Formats: sequence, structure tokens, C-alpha cells
Amino acid sequence: MTGYVAALDIGGTTIKSALHHGVTTTAHHRRPTPRQLGPEAVVAAVLDEARALVEHGTARHGTPPAALGVACLGMVDEHTGTAVASSAIGWHDVPLRELLAAATGLPVTVTNDLRAAAHAEARTRDDDDFLFVAVGTGIGGAIVTGGDVRTGAHQRAGEIGHLTVHQGGYRCGCGAHGCLEAEASASAVARRHHAATGGQATARDVARLAATGDTAAAAVWQTTVSRLATGLSMAATLLDPGVVVVGGGLSLAGEQLLGPLREAFERRFRMPRPPRLVLSTHGDESACVGAALMALEARA
Amino acid sequence: MTGYVAALDIGGTTIKSALHHGVTTTAHHRRPTPRQLGPEAVVAAVLDEARALVEHGTARHGTPPAALGVACLGMVDEHTGTAVASSAIGWHDVPLRELLAAATGLPVTVTNDLRAAAHAEARTRDDDDFLFVAVGTGIGGAIVTGGDVRTGAHQRAGEIGHLTVHQGGYRCGCGAHGCLEAEASASAVARRHHAATGGQATARDVARLAATGDTAAAAVWQTTVSRLATGLSMAATLLDPGVVVVGGGLSLAGEQLLGPLREAFERRFRMPRPPRLVLSTHGDESACVGAALMALEARA
Repeated sequence: MTGYVAALDIGGTTIKSALHHGVTTTAHHRRPTPRQLGPEAVVAAVLDEARALVEHGTARHGTPPAALGVACLGMVDEHTGTAVASSAIGWHDVPLRELLAAATGLPVTVTNDLRAAAHAEARTRDDDDFLFVAVGTGIGGAIVTGGDVRTGAHQRAGEIGHLTVHQGGYRCGCGAHGCLEAEASASAVARRHHAATGGQATARDVARLAATGDTAAAAVWQTTVSRLATGLSMAATLLDPGVVVVGGGLSLAGEQLLGPLREAFERRFRMPRPPRLVLSTHGDESACVGAALMALEARA
Repeated sequence: MTGYVAALDIGGTTIKSALHHGVTTTAHHRRPTPRQLGPEAVVAAVLDEARALVEHGTARHGTPPAALGVACLGMVDEHTGTAVASSAIGWHDVPLRELLAAATGLPVTVTNDLRAAAHAEARTRDDDDFLFVAVGTGIGGAIVTGGDVRTGAHQRAGEIGHLTVHQGGYRCGCGAHGCLEAEASASAVARRHHAATGGQATARDVARLAATGDTAAAAVWQTTVSRLATGLSMAATLLDPGVVVVGGGLSLAGEQLLGPLREAFERRFRMPRPPRLVLSTHGDESACVGAALMALEARA
């Protein structure tokens, strides 16, 4: 199939949309996820974003996109196209494929955002066996072996966010304490910085402050990186990947994240031949790129 | 190929040998691993055991075995048939295949003991996707997806023994503290019981004592099971297996292990639809059975 496809990435903080020719993004747009307005408002925003995207594509290219690929946070059933459980936005059994097909008239492919992101990485790098980890509002991962993203028995393989990395640490959304997600996500950076200073900085602010020599911010950053290294080290011990690909919003900090992360990882990792730690090729656009590729491949 | 094959399982405590027709064991023998005498003594014992096994088979069946399958602890390079690093017995780059082929005149297949055990489970149960965990002198695991044992980038996928399950816990052979292996292996049971009572009981003794209502032994057993549940829960969170198969020496305790383990696991596991926990089909003979099957399949 030739032509272009549309892609949506439904996250806890942002709904991203894009038009893609293969891995090339020709247009993209973002809006905040209105999760404070409730699950139905999020559905409405997603449908609105999809319609606007298709209109924009049609106006620009003269024809509508060939398909729509959708990446959604949480547990997704790819076979039925349903968002089974996305706790951050309060979704349960939302028939995404059906709703979006009706709204756009396009064939729709629905997948989990982490699997989509890992798929994008698998198609655009030389490594066939790697662990993909997205560090954003939350932390999640996906396992790629032989170039394919593993789904696991219940379509949630790669749930690295709930490894315990700090006993008695921050309480996680899952109810446990000290999960990687509670200790090393962008939200954890903000939370830890608030606990240390009383300030209301985002993870991006903290990274910027740390880079300019702010002591409190640097300590918060260092602790976060250390917890992340613990989680990656445990996962890499169990999985023995050749490469660990770090993506998600926090990865936009680039070497400010990767440099100290590599150091902390190598101190912790006890096995011979540690995996290489690298940054995601597509930054925080991975899920959109992956959803687009999966939509293309589904129609090939 | 028809006929029978010979199998060896080289462990840190015991060298097991057996003759197999498919998954049926027709003879087996054990001797202690003379690891206190040094790495060369262990090599000599392995070669001696292999020669005796082949002689026994030849006397019994009129012909020598068709092949020899070898399962060895530690890091094994299956392509070269080398025991790359087996720290418990001090081996580094021991050319096992070459040595055993010369000693027996048979075609030899060499693999890691955990992968062999998982292979045996994969060939003799209905599940195609599971996590295999062997709880013995140490703790190790293997990941089976689509009926195949994953090797990982460096042939050590499934290294569950070095997940941190208790921060600041017992020091592990790897140098870290609180690894699953240091906290929940048969050795850990003995160590914990010694710390609590000053006694010199083996894990088997402790299990027996706990079953008869000995309070100290019951507490040691419960703590060990709880740590094991933590490790299994973390691995199952990351991997999303449909089933977790528990084997190794400690699994011979059967329901005394599995009952409380299931309970502790279900308390800890935070995801929907936990995997089923089941006992290994072959108990602590899994590695021998798997090595035999791999030797057979290599010649099919």
C-alpha cells in the first residue's frame, strides 16, 4: 500500500496526532488530555482530534489517509480494538476501533502505546532484540525479540514500571510502594523536587535547574536516575537484551539523562557484558510512528 | 532417530546421570559434585560419570547410547559446547563437548541446566509461554515463548536469581545484597534457619520440621516463601507469562511450598489475571530430561 496514514497517540497527559508517509512525519498536532473532565470527555477529545486530523490530511493531500493507527495507554486488546483498562484516564472497555472507524470512515488499528513505540524502534534500528522503556508521566516498557514485540499472555509483557526499586518508597498507583514508576517517572521527579524544596517544578524544569547547577534539583535528578538504573538493571538481568532503548518524555533530556544513567547502570549490573543503553530514535513521537507503521502493515 | 540417549546434569551439589527413551528415564545415578577439590576434580568426576553411564547403557542394551546430552550450570555457549563460566564449581571456558566426546565416543550436545529443564517442561506440558524457575542450591530461571526457550543476547535470559527482593538482605555471590537467590534458595533456607536457631539443618530438614509444627522452622519457611513470591511477582509483572513453573530441589516439597507460595504471590501481584503457579512435571530431573531431549532433537 502506498499513500499516507494518520496516527493518534492517546496518553495520560497529551493526545498526539500525526500524518505519516512511512516513518516520515508530515504533520503533527498535540492537545492536552482532558482527564480531569472524566473518561467521556477524553473519548470526545480523541474523536474530535481524529476528525480534525483526517480533515487536515484530506485538505492537504487531496485524498483522505489510507488508514488510522491508534496507540493508547493502558491495557489494549488488539484483536477487538478495545481499550480494556487505562486507569490514568478512567477508561474501561472503550471500543476505540469501532468509535474511531465511525468517526473517520477509515480502517482503524488499535494497539498499546508502548508496543507501538517499541514497534517503531524495531522497524528503524538494526537491533532485533531489545528492551524498550518509556519514561514519561508513567513508566512502561516492551520486550522485542527477533524483531517482534512480545505481547505476553495478557497483552501486558514489558510492565517494567511495577518492579520494586526502593523498598518503602513512594506509593504507586498500583497500591504498592517503591515501584519504578513511582520512583523514576517524570511525575516522580516533580514529586521528589516538591518534597525537597516545596516548589512546583515539572520534570523538565528540574532537568533545566540541575543543568544550571541548582543543588537541590541536581540531587533530585541524581536520585531519580539511580532508581531508574536499578529498575533497568533488574529487567536487563532477567531478560538479557543486547540493547536497552530509553524513550518517553524524560528521554528528551538526552545525555543529561543517559550519561549518569549509564554510569549508575554499570555500577549496579552484576552480569558480564551489560547491554548498551541508547536513546529512542523517535523521542516521544515513537508511539505515533509505531501506530502509523502498524496501520500500514495491517493493510499491506 | 530411535534408540536411547544418555544425559548428564552437572550441578553445584550433585552430578546426575540418566538413560532416556524420549522422556522416559530408564536408569539414573547421582554423585556429589566434588567442588571442594577444585575445578579439575569436577571435570574428572564428570568424565568418569559419563564413561560409567555409557558402559552401563551398553551392558544393558547391547549398544551404546545414540548421543549424550549435557546440562551444565552457569553460562554455557551452546554453539561451541563450552562451559563459559560456572562460578559455583570454578569453571571458566571448559570445552565440555570436546572432552566428553573424546571420553565417550558419542555425539555430545551441551546446554545450560535451566534451559534444559525449561525445554523438558516445554515438551511435556500444554503451555507454550511460561516462566520456569528452579529453586535449588541457587535460583535460576528460563523464559519460554512459543514453545521455545529464549536464550537472550548473551545466553543468560531468565536470570531471575539476581532480582533484588529484600533491600539490605543477605549478601549474594554476585556481590549485591538481597538477591532472590540469596534470600529464597535452599541455601538461604539453611542460612536463615542457622541464623535463627544456631542449628545445622538443610532446607529439606527445615521443611520437615516446619511440617511437624516447629515454630522456628515454620517462620523460616514462611519468610523464604514470601521472598520467593516477591521475586516471582516481579518477574511475572515484567514478562506476563500465562504460567509460572516451579522446579528444582525445593519444589520437591510440593504443596508445602506451592500452597503458601500461591497465597503470597497473589497478595503481591498487582496486575489483573495473575499467572497460574504450578510444579515442574519432572521435579529435579528436568535438566536431565531436557538434555536428553535436546540431544535426540539435535540428531533427528
